[in-house]
Amino acid sequence: MPRASVREQIVDAAYEQFHRHGYNAAGVKLITDSAGVPKGSFYNHFESKEALALVVMDRYGESRHLETLADKKVLALTRLREHFEFLAKDIVDFGYERGCVYGNFSTEAADHIPAIREGVRTGFDHWADAITAAIREAQEDGSITSSQDPGTLGRFLVNAWEGAIVGERAAKDGSSFAAFFTVAFDTLLR
Amino acid sequence: MPRASVREQIVDAAYEQFHRHGYNAAGVKLITDSAGVPKGSFYNHFESKEALALVVMDRYGESRHLETLADKKVLALTRLREHFEFLAKDIVDFGYERGCVYGNFSTEAADHIPAIREGVRTGFDHWADAITAAIREAQEDGSITSSQDPGTLGRFLVNAWEGAIVGERAAKDGSSFAAFFTVAFDTLLR
Repeated sequence: MPRASVREQIVDAAYEQFHRHGYNAAGVKLITDSAGVPKGSFYNHFESKEALALVVMDRYGESRHLETLADKKVLALTRLREHFEFLAKDIVDFGYERGCVYGNFSTEAADHIPAIREGVRTGFDHWADAITAAIREAQEDGSITSSQDPGTLGRFLVNAWEGAIVGERAAKDGSSFAAFFTVAFDTLLR
Repeated sequence: MPRASVREQIVDAAYEQFHRHGYNAAGVKLITDSAGVPKGSFYNHFESKEALALVVMDRYGESRHLETLADKKVLALTRLREHFEFLAKDIVDFGYERGCVYGNFSTEAADHIPAIREGVRTGFDHWADAITAAIREAQEDGSITSSQDPGTLGRFLVNAWEGAIVGERAAKDGSSFAAFFTVAFDTLLR
């Protein structure tokens, strides 16, 4: 197998380090050290840490597999549940640490760095749109009887999920995820 | 009026700097500079930045005015709405910046600093308990007909609020708060 390009090594390392330490604590030196490349090589590939963060956010977005929310072979309501179960597994597998890259960047960097704020906003919007479309389908196929506006509910569920992660990073006991699944699927998506 | 003690000046400055810059970016030097006291005076009053963060979290908790959630002179459902309106105003007044100290510390520091994680967990627990008690009262006085377990709903609402803040820090357009109030008060607390 060919050796990953230096650029690719930097992106892989940044993905890991941003996720583990957050935006501010993961400096260029930490990222290049972790990638095993000279710090000087960084600026051959990226204009700034900020530019790298945008690439990482795109890759994180892809890893959320939003396409499964549009997979017509599966009942829309089942897709919604499986989507959140997939996201929960990711967090539980890291011992409730690290959180969501979008949420971390929003909390840590959105106030100060307009490009990151814009990247997070776009990421949340795409995600809420994918959930909204699945809710609309489930309302149309009759598996959800609630007539709540799907766009409002989609936005609400994205945020409620982000907040459940914030709760779990403090409690690490599964109670916030359990409350999310109970309220989301027993009340809101009915 | 007597001059605030050095300790008090440090706590005031830390409250501001942690809220504005987050835990990691607000170093001891930034805090003492902002307090207008010598950096050397810090360790006469606090063992560590971490110890100061715990004091700031307590003060932040007091500023949330959870006691109003237990004020029997006001209908419990009204108290719940006024509580979240109060929290929303705080964020909107800062132009959707800064967020919630608990949420910021959970995201930035809980993974790495056990005492901070414990402080955030306790803060969220007290808050969820106060909301849970008000929900239970509203179920008892008949203003909420939903029979959802109040503890589950209380925890869910705390997290959904934290997530709405995460959403607003990216979008800064009021859409996440609007979705919160619509879903929370038109569906969940009915």
